[in-house]
Amino acid sequence: MTVTVRPRQADPQELADLYTTTRALTDRLVSRLSPEDQVPQSMTSASPVAWHRAHTTWFFEEMVLGRVENPGHRFLFNSYYEAIGDRQPRPQRGMITRPSVAEIAGYRADVDKRVTAALEGGDLDGRALELLEMGCHHEQQHQELLLMDFKHLLSLNPTDPVYLERPADTLVDVPECGWVPVAEGVAELGAEDSWGFSYDNERPRHRTYLPEGAIADRQVTVGEWKEFMADGGYRRPELWLSDGWASVKQNGWEAPGYWRREEDSTWTTFTLSGRRPVVDSEPVVHISFYEAHAFATWAGHRLPTEAEWESVAGDWDFGDELDPQRCHPGNVRRNSIGGVWEWTQSAYLPYPGFQPEEGVASEYNGKFMSDQYVLRGASALTPAGHSRKTYRNFFPAESRWVCAGLRLATGPIR
Amino acid sequence: MTVTVRPRQADPQELADLYTTTRALTDRLVSRLSPEDQVPQSMTSASPVAWHRAHTTWFFEEMVLGRVENPGHRFLFNSYYEAIGDRQPRPQRGMITRPSVAEIAGYRADVDKRVTAALEGGDLDGRALELLEMGCHHEQQHQELLLMDFKHLLSLNPTDPVYLERPADTLVDVPECGWVPVAEGVAELGAEDSWGFSYDNERPRHRTYLPEGAIADRQVTVGEWKEFMADGGYRRPELWLSDGWASVKQNGWEAPGYWRREEDSTWTTFTLSGRRPVVDSEPVVHISFYEAHAFATWAGHRLPTEAEWESVAGDWDFGDELDPQRCHPGNVRRNSIGGVWEWTQSAYLPYPGFQPEEGVASEYNGKFMSDQYVLRGASALTPAGHSRKTYRNFFPAESRWVCAGLRLATGPIR
Amino acid sequence: MTVTVRPRQADPQELADLYTTTRALTDRLVSRLSPEDQVPQSMTSASPVAWHRAHTTWFFEEMVLGRVENPGHRFLFNSYYEAIGDRQPRPQRGMITRPSVAEIAGYRADVDKRVTAALEGGDLDGRALELLEMGCHHEQQHQELLLMDFKHLLSLNPTDPVYLERPADTLVDVPECGWVPVAEGVAELGAEDSWGFSYDNERPRHRTYLPEGAIADRQVTVGEWKEFMADGGYRRPELWLSDGWASVKQNGWEAPGYWRREEDSTWTTFTLSGRRPVVDSEPVVHISFYEAHAFATWAGHRLPTEAEWESVAGDWDFGDELDPQRCHPGNVRRNSIGGVWEWTQSAYLPYPGFQPEEGVASEYNGKFMSDQYVLRGASALTPAGHSRKTYRNFFPAESRWVCAGLRLATGPIR
Amino acid sequence: MTVTVRPRQADPQELADLYTTTRALTDRLVSRLSPEDQVPQSMTSASPVAWHRAHTTWFFEEMVLGRVENPGHRFLFNSYYEAIGDRQPRPQRGMITRPSVAEIAGYRADVDKRVTAALEGGDLDGRALELLEMGCHHEQQHQELLLMDFKHLLSLNPTDPVYLERPADTLVDVPECGWVPVAEGVAELGAEDSWGFSYDNERPRHRTYLPEGAIADRQVTVGEWKEFMADGGYRRPELWLSDGWASVKQNGWEAPGYWRREEDSTWTTFTLSGRRPVVDSEPVVHISFYEAHAFATWAGHRLPTEAEWESVAGDWDFGDELDPQRCHPGNVRRNSIGGVWEWTQSAYLPYPGFQPEEGVASEYNGKFMSDQYVLRGASALTPAGHSRKTYRNFFPAESRWVCAGLRLATGPIR
Repeated sequence: MTVTVRPRQADPQELADLYTTTRALTDRLVSRLSPEDQVPQSMTSASPVAWHRAHTTWFFEEMVLGRVENPGHRFLFNSYYEAIGDRQPRPQRGMITRPSVAEIAGYRADVDKRVTAALEGGDLDGRALELLEMGCHHEQQHQELLLMDFKHLLSLNPTDPVYLERPADTLVDVPECGWVPVAEGVAELGAEDSWGFSYDNERPRHRTYLPEGAIADRQVTVGEWKEFMADGGYRRPELWLSDGWASVKQNGWEAPGYWRREEDSTWTTFTLSGRRPVVDSEPVVHISFYEAHAFATWAGHRLPTEAEWESVAGDWDFGDELDPQRCHPGNVRRNSIGGVWEWTQSAYLPYPGFQPEEGVASEYNGKFMSDQYVLRGASALTPAGHSRKTYRNFFPAESRWVCAGLRLATGPIR
Repeated sequence: MTVTVRPRQADPQELADLYTTTRALTDRLVSRLSPEDQVPQSMTSASPVAWHRAHTTWFFEEMVLGRVENPGHRFLFNSYYEAIGDRQPRPQRGMITRPSVAEIAGYRADVDKRVTAALEGGDLDGRALELLEMGCHHEQQHQELLLMDFKHLLSLNPTDPVYLERPADTLVDVPECGWVPVAEGVAELGAEDSWGFSYDNERPRHRTYLPEGAIADRQVTVGEWKEFMADGGYRRPELWLSDGWASVKQNGWEAPGYWRREEDSTWTTFTLSGRRPVVDSEPVVHISFYEAHAFATWAGHRLPTEAEWESVAGDWDFGDELDPQRCHPGNVRRNSIGGVWEWTQSAYLPYPGFQPEEGVASEYNGKFMSDQYVLRGASALTPAGHSRKTYRNFFPAESRWVCAGLRLATGPIR
Repeated sequence: MTVTVRPRQADPQELADLYTTTRALTDRLVSRLSPEDQVPQSMTSASPVAWHRAHTTWFFEEMVLGRVENPGHRFLFNSYYEAIGDRQPRPQRGMITRPSVAEIAGYRADVDKRVTAALEGGDLDGRALELLEMGCHHEQQHQELLLMDFKHLLSLNPTDPVYLERPADTLVDVPECGWVPVAEGVAELGAEDSWGFSYDNERPRHRTYLPEGAIADRQVTVGEWKEFMADGGYRRPELWLSDGWASVKQNGWEAPGYWRREEDSTWTTFTLSGRRPVVDSEPVVHISFYEAHAFATWAGHRLPTEAEWESVAGDWDFGDELDPQRCHPGNVRRNSIGGVWEWTQSAYLPYPGFQPEEGVASEYNGKFMSDQYVLRGASALTPAGHSRKTYRNFFPAESRWVCAGLRLATGPIR
Repeated sequence: MTVTVRPRQADPQELADLYTTTRALTDRLVSRLSPEDQVPQSMTSASPVAWHRAHTTWFFEEMVLGRVENPGHRFLFNSYYEAIGDRQPRPQRGMITRPSVAEIAGYRADVDKRVTAALEGGDLDGRALELLEMGCHHEQQHQELLLMDFKHLLSLNPTDPVYLERPADTLVDVPECGWVPVAEGVAELGAEDSWGFSYDNERPRHRTYLPEGAIADRQVTVGEWKEFMADGGYRRPELWLSDGWASVKQNGWEAPGYWRREEDSTWTTFTLSGRRPVVDSEPVVHISFYEAHAFATWAGHRLPTEAEWESVAGDWDFGDELDPQRCHPGNVRRNSIGGVWEWTQSAYLPYPGFQPEEGVASEYNGKFMSDQYVLRGASALTPAGHSRKTYRNFFPAESRWVCAGLRLATGPIR
């Protein structure tokens, strides 16, 4: 894998640029939204847009500046940091109508001014600068969450509202799926400090043992998913994990999230550009881990492990990351990452020798290392520059509002 | 009971005035609110402010004008009329961010124009005029709901926001409680058509038999409630109905809704003017039927029946109805109705000979006649002119977000 | 109404006979059951047979003898008496496998010996004798509950077990339904102390006002219920109370409880004699209040109030009470009570002047006077001599495991 | 690791012996139970004793004999095999009072006769013999479940019943805990077919990469757990995984399962011999994965992976397996496996190249490979000969009714 070697400590000027760019992108993404759009919370796993905007701001104030001027903000916009104290119960984030959206914009501007002044004044020590960089990546992560969550919210409005207008999609011929071999043997996995920013959960770089196998050189498409459905995919328990089958029955799943069968028997899906016909050449998206697993079983293959994935990903290009004028995966491409996150078969567990970040930031990743699955890659909602080939995204197996699809893996090719 | 005799059919000019005044009051009540404030739904029983504004408008469009121009409005803003078709699931009213608050204001203006034109053009037949009058009372009812619901929403914001500023309350000497005797015998109950507007659930006027007894000439105060609490009121199962005691334990009730014990052991309560000390001379408010019942048992008395209440209420004055500059009960007064709704011991059941309204409006009241209790009077959130001495308000026994308190009744005074 | 005049204080010898007979009937009813049958609790509202046997025994020990020898019994077999202290959580009654069924039989024998000795020795004062009589009626009540609960338990066994064998039912011609007029005016309702035993909730006898109307002289049949179903009864929201319609949708109701549509489109029902075809000439049974209410609406009539019912019932005969060789309603008869309890439209509320029993027994009835409906009459599971024309049975509106049906009422017949 | 080499195909005579011994042990374990004891289901995850007895019998009938004589048995006693058809809903296993316990004993005897005849008559082909062996291991697994489930049931009886009498426990000096080094490098993991019986989830044997580290040579004791508790273990969120902390708060955990603080501040625990003081020198037991993880964090160490565990376990002896006269872990010993299952940090996932069993048995293990954690070793409820060093037990992270404790692991020892 080609990596940039650089000191763990980012350059202050680069950091200032990263900060400015990151903050601006959030503003751009929400510029289409009314205040009304920014308040509701559509489910416990999701958060209001206004909350995302304030929480990411609080993160800088708390972690980098070390002083939260308004104690209410500390209570309202702390997500889950137990060390910082009590906070608004997660299911009640959508009850916060005060501070208003305009006040939150003011809060953002104020913190921006203070961070910039601190940067320019050289007031931030090494750890503060590290946390500033982490804060930028944190905000990028929330840019994707904000879009996921807002899409989920809009989807509950029966009038199928439009976040952004864009042209109709184009159906293309899907390239034949090839297999990239994975050689048996010891491989290395994870990030080095010297490679630049990474989250603690990607470290340390360590050895693992790969079995012989192969990974598909492109993601599974909508067209292929329709074949699975036509073959009774959602009605055949033998294809499913036990908990997955329970989810199918309990939730009445019969297609990916946001899909709806129209009166003419075609399928549409809800997108950030309203309800649209599904496009066979796009990667399937808004499927749970359970559905990905069932599809792979149906196809006679399996999901890749994250070690396999990382061993192969070095040769692939990132592409189809967030385009604020589109916010939807494009057609599948070979030897490419992006468009949709890819479920792996790996549970989200610590790497051998894992050390959480120091201080409050120790709660960032480590405490979630149970009962979730790793996704690799990036999606059409992931801001460019956010993800890495060592990046470990993670969600519970039942999640469907993630912009996630799958790529197959298999045993030795003979 | 003194009643105004007038034909069932209201005068068109009076109706036009009622319409204008009613619509204007809604606008005035929400004029202090941001768009953000108007979107969230704080619990299934409550609705967003914006939804109240749109639903009351849709009611006129559907029932009076007979034509809903935007089919989305019919889906989104139909509350529970099965005859009209499918609708937004009740628990998801807070997900509606489009139409925006501004668009809803436009919707209101448009329907106002159409209704006014129809009135002026004489296009409304007798039934339409009746429904127009009902629509005005319906909107008044929603004015109170809007304030109740918005108060509940604000109460979930830990920063204790303020809807309206107002001066501190004044503690006064509470008048001694007297008893108004109720004579044994046949009495009449309910409304006559000829008395002007009434809901179907108040009709027909009919005979009932009253036992000898007495009703308190004022409501129970905060100070008296504190005595109940000090005497273990919330810890003594023998005072409670079985379902009430289950509610106490399940919800951890130890004081009325919105009360909080401060560090100095005093009690505050959340009001539409923020968090304030409770005032001993005000009527206790935000109690459930179960709490009212337990208090009455503790006091050695009971709640009145709605028949007893109505037989006595004729001699009382309405007072302490909605003052948009206050929105909170004032101190208790003798021989007066208002400030807080009063729980009765009567289940909400049809009167003998009850006939629901014709058509779609038949669903207005009748289908809710189970598993609820009748409240009588009016509250500090009830717009003047809305309630009547025959008025039957109703809520489930566990409800605490209603502006409701109690008045005692007792057996024969000897 | 013809009533037996007797002192409140029952004759000791009669009481001894009542005690012996009552206790023997419980034993007879359970003699067909294995120990296994007596342990499980099928739902929170139901109790295990063994628990019923022990609880009724504990009732005599606690209330009459005034001394519970085994403190474990006090904890395990106290149903809901808060004044007596903590007890086994209601949903965990089915976890009690020790004491064994044989030990519970021994407990019954021991208490029988002690009660009989106390009676013979004249050790029981007037209040103890009153409580002994109440204890017998309490045990009769549990005989019906035991059968209801055990039927519900067996119904969850897909093999359709048989509690007792009996011959096939006979379809007969159903008599035309006549109407018994109810004259408008003041009537008396409830029991006098001098009439012999009654529960506190039947007292005091008091005046009420009856509107002009009429009550059907027989219950609604299975055949009539099928017409309701055929006419879309379970699919037409306009026939239902709002909470009732919510129950229909949530529980998927499309027929009375225990009914099942067979492959040949006929209906069977689960009985204590296994699964059997429904019989058109029997009263419909295992319906909720909501279903009874919907049927009455569909029929263009309504349910009677309990006052109307009691005013008419004086002329009817009790019949079709518990026959341990049948345990199932027979065909409907005119001018007769029994077979199935009859839902009224009356909420279960205290009569004017209601005084609960003294002491611990005060919790027997009064604290349940909310959120339930009154049923009148008796059923094929009610032991003879248990019910009275003033008897007030009560259950929540959604209950279907009660042996309950309905009788129609209507407005003036012209 | 020392392993016995033998053909996958077991010897028929050995199989006959295994069958006889296994079936007899089940009978011995339940010989102390009344019919009542065998019916209730204490929670959805647990099953009634009678159901365990019938289900294990059905397994032989269905899988080995290939013919279920009573179709009701197929419905009632199929656990989760979708391919076999519909079955009794899992939460309703406790509703089965028919067939009776005696009939289930008869069912067992009948199937025993048929299996023995088939074995003696040479009627079973190779696959049937394999399934017979699996059926014996399946029944052994249910012997442990039966004891776990029955213990949980008894624990809900406030009288603390006794399953078996046994002498008081003896407190001993706990040996100092040593560390067994784990060398970095490629290791092999899993079972070979040639080693005799194993479940599909233990296969195939495959390579893995071990980091340098060390594993404790004994389990964590009750005494050590008390130190964790005394140091605020259950009150310090920083020690817990996020889902674990949520479990602590939701369930009010403040000690291991079955522990109770007595009035003299000592701790007791519920055992199959009734309630007893906890013994400091025994391994801590009835802890969830979350608690094990929190303890390890508190201790400055971590849980082992299953690969680390297996690499070291070769040098340890099995001990403290099921003694039907004790059914409770003894004091901890060094270099020994048994007494309590040991939570690992490994999620329960398929080994590379995993192939489920063929046919219906494919549902035995594979479909549960999500959202669970691997436990290794054996417990004082595991019948001797059941577990293996390659054995993978698995339960959800929140489970506390398993006889499970923990053993620490750590990074390199320097």
